Amino acid sequence: MNKNKAIVLVSGGMDSCVTTAKAIDDNYELALLHINYGQRTEKRELQAFNDIANFYQIKNRMVSDITHLSNIGGSCLTDKTIDVPNAKLNDTNIPISYVPFRNANILAIAVSWGEIIHANTIFVGAVEEDSSGYPDCRRSFFDAFEKVIIEGAKPDTNISITTPLINLSKKEIILLGGKLNAPLGLTWSCYKQEDKPCETCDSCVLRARGFLQAKIKDPIINF
Amino acid sequence: MNKNKAIVLVSGGMDSCVTTAKAIDDNYELALLHINYGQRTEKRELQAFNDIANFYQIKNRMVSDITHLSNIGGSCLTDKTIDVPNAKLNDTNIPISYVPFRNANILAIAVSWGEIIHANTIFVGAVEEDSSGYPDCRRSFFDAFEKVIIEGAKPDTNISITTPLINLSKKEIILLGGKLNAPLGLTWSCYKQEDKPCETCDSCVLRARGFLQAKIKDPIINF
Repeated sequence: MNKNKAIVLVSGGMDSCVTTAKAIDDNYELALLHINYGQRTEKRELQAFNDIANFYQIKNRMVSDITHLSNIGGSCLTDKTIDVPNAKLNDTNIPISYVPFRNANILAIAVSWGEIIHANTIFVGAVEEDSSGYPDCRRSFFDAFEKVIIEGAKPDTNISITTPLINLSKKEIILLGGKLNAPLGLTWSCYKQEDKPCETCDSCVLRARGFLQAKIKDPIINF
Repeated sequence: MNKNKAIVLVSGGMDSCVTTAKAIDDNYELALLHINYGQRTEKRELQAFNDIANFYQIKNRMVSDITHLSNIGGSCLTDKTIDVPNAKLNDTNIPISYVPFRNANILAIAVSWGEIIHANTIFVGAVEEDSSGYPDCRRSFFDAFEKVIIEGAKPDTNISITTPLINLSKKEIILLGGKLNAPLGLTWSCYKQEDKPCETCDSCVLRARGFLQAKIKDPIINF
């Protein structure tokens, strides 16, 4: 019997790595999508994407460049005139690292590809609770996007959006990654640097706190 | 008082030209977005976009390349191994000119830009009835997308989707264009050729039928 097919969005970070592991554990045939949207650490992230894809021996990969997000700017991830701030995890404002409507752009690409390769679902490693508070990482956003797929794609297209980590904490994601033998040592999270993690940006601090709470050593940090 | 701001999606075709005219008539300050998605006639369409923008003296323009739609293929507009068929206007199937989930990709770009320039609405010249039957040209699709904007964009972003032509016939669009003095002679509709309209593809045949019913001569056709 043919396996169901899933597109997994793989940034190269820890969440997308564990999401890939979960999609494999759920017995899907995988196609991996990586998006270069002009983010500061894209070179390192692309390496992480390919390392994860190689680890799982997944040949069906697509890397897309969407230059308009860096042209539009407005985020410290894509606009080099805006500094990446140190983490402020209890701030309830949308952080300056928010890239305007990024995940809708990425999902639209995934659905276009999914229509042609007949994917059944798109796996996204979005995290709602223990995260930076981006609006396009909430399950309500993915629910709304599923309705857009129903209305805007061909009638025989049937693509859901699977978000296995949406309600997990970073600690729980790390523990799930361990259980599934996900190669967390191949991942990259830092928003700011490509040689070694800055350990001060939101993404580094969330990652460090997760490993601390999970009582596991982060394989990419040299203690 | 500052005018409300609208992004208008301008392919360079007749519908987007009349939509631009309508947005101006509605007293918006305009920003024009054109997307190159690897379509066959992009060079001619880009010229039409710039001609229309110049006609209205609109300086705020963005042209974005989204190469993934041509890489993904599956449409006669983006895949040169698939011929552009002659028009079959009464066929109820989705035509081969359907570009997978194209309008969601384009709208996502428009919303990203709209968040930064504080647009109030996005004007789209989609036509539901007298059209080729693309699923992503139906009002129900735009309604669903408006919910995605509410869920996925920043809380202070408030962008609607305005579709002034959605229920018009081509004849009515041409008459509206005439009433608003829209420069229809600057537009391009043909899916297939860039030097002169093929007069056999869906888009040419829909356009010709509209002018015939409106009892107006198409300014781009030499009789």
